[in-house]
Amino acid sequence: MVSSVRSDFIAETTALLARTPEVLRALLIGLPEGWTDTPDTADGWRPRDVVGHLITGEVTDWIARTRRILEQGPSVPFDRFDREAMLHRDAGVPLDDLVERFAALRAENLATLGDLVTDADLDRRGLHPSLGEVTLRELLATWAVHDLDHIGQIHAGLAGSHDAAVGPWKTYLGILLRRDDPSAVPG
Amino acid sequence: MVSSVRSDFIAETTALLARTPEVLRALLIGLPEGWTDTPDTADGWRPRDVVGHLITGEVTDWIARTRRILEQGPSVPFDRFDREAMLHRDAGVPLDDLVERFAALRAENLATLGDLVTDADLDRRGLHPSLGEVTLRELLATWAVHDLDHIGQIHAGLAGSHDAAVGPWKTYLGILLRRDDPSAVPG
Repeated sequence: MVSSVRSDFIAETTALLARTPEVLRALLIGLPEGWTDTPDTADGWRPRDVVGHLITGEVTDWIARTRRILEQGPSVPFDRFDREAMLHRDAGVPLDDLVERFAALRAENLATLGDLVTDADLDRRGLHPSLGEVTLRELLATWAVHDLDHIGQIHAGLAGSHDAAVGPWKTYLGILLRRDDPSAVPG
Repeated sequence: MVSSVRSDFIAETTALLARTPEVLRALLIGLPEGWTDTPDTADGWRPRDVVGHLITGEVTDWIARTRRILEQGPSVPFDRFDREAMLHRDAGVPLDDLVERFAALRAENLATLGDLVTDADLDRRGLHPSLGEVTLRELLATWAVHDLDHIGQIHAGLAGSHDAAVGPWKTYLGILLRRDDPSAVPG
């Protein structure tokens, strides 16, 4: 039961976070493998790896860090995010199953968020192990923008599968040009 | 009535093209304006401008160029694509209406494509006014990758609306860093 009045910030952030499973379903479920088996860059991630990375975030990161802020503040730094946990964990799991696993975890986490956080908590602070002090508001905004960043990465992998197929049009397609230019990929 | 046997290429390309309206609906319909009112770069396009650009493609480009290839081959170059037609045409139209307008046009165009094109046509040629000779296969692959490129642009605008909100995490979010670095945006 959510008894708190939510701020616009929490409602707006949740509005984006709640859409990601539907976006991934619309884009990926049943899409032919000719589209889905290419990484976003030569040493990057295939769409299935990106969905696995999003699953890791749901399991180990966003809600865990929210609880750390609420329970311990900046006295204990966040645990580090294992960015490559999915590469062994999800080997052999079909992409469609990964999308549904992510969707279930996201729904559960948004319900938890609704129970845990009110407007009054947004300025509470935690300690990021590399970035230093951050607020709960920044954590929640990052959760949503992180979704957008990685859905974009999925698009780059899908596009990359047809890099040769577009012929001379490649020169107009930034999503393909950026795959070949590592300077366009921030570290 | 589609009487031809479709190649894998046409079926796979259509599978991607048919998803874009659902992806845009899942992402944009009803999304709070706090997310949707920011361009992808300082002089870029808001999500509504991108959807308008996709509408222009449906109205003036992809099927028109398909017909030009089938009817005239490379003897008459394609008409140029007005990349900014939406800026005046769609002023004042709500974003949700633009998404539905795009969805209707895309459905109509995929039905037309199914009527017009068979596997045997894919190597037929047309003349791009800047790029020179191209094949129908390249045109159709480009239609799909162009979708992915511009959905990515929508993501960049959505993310950009929360550029300040993520605080120090920005350093990890390529989708935000690329907005500030024009060298990452191919011309």
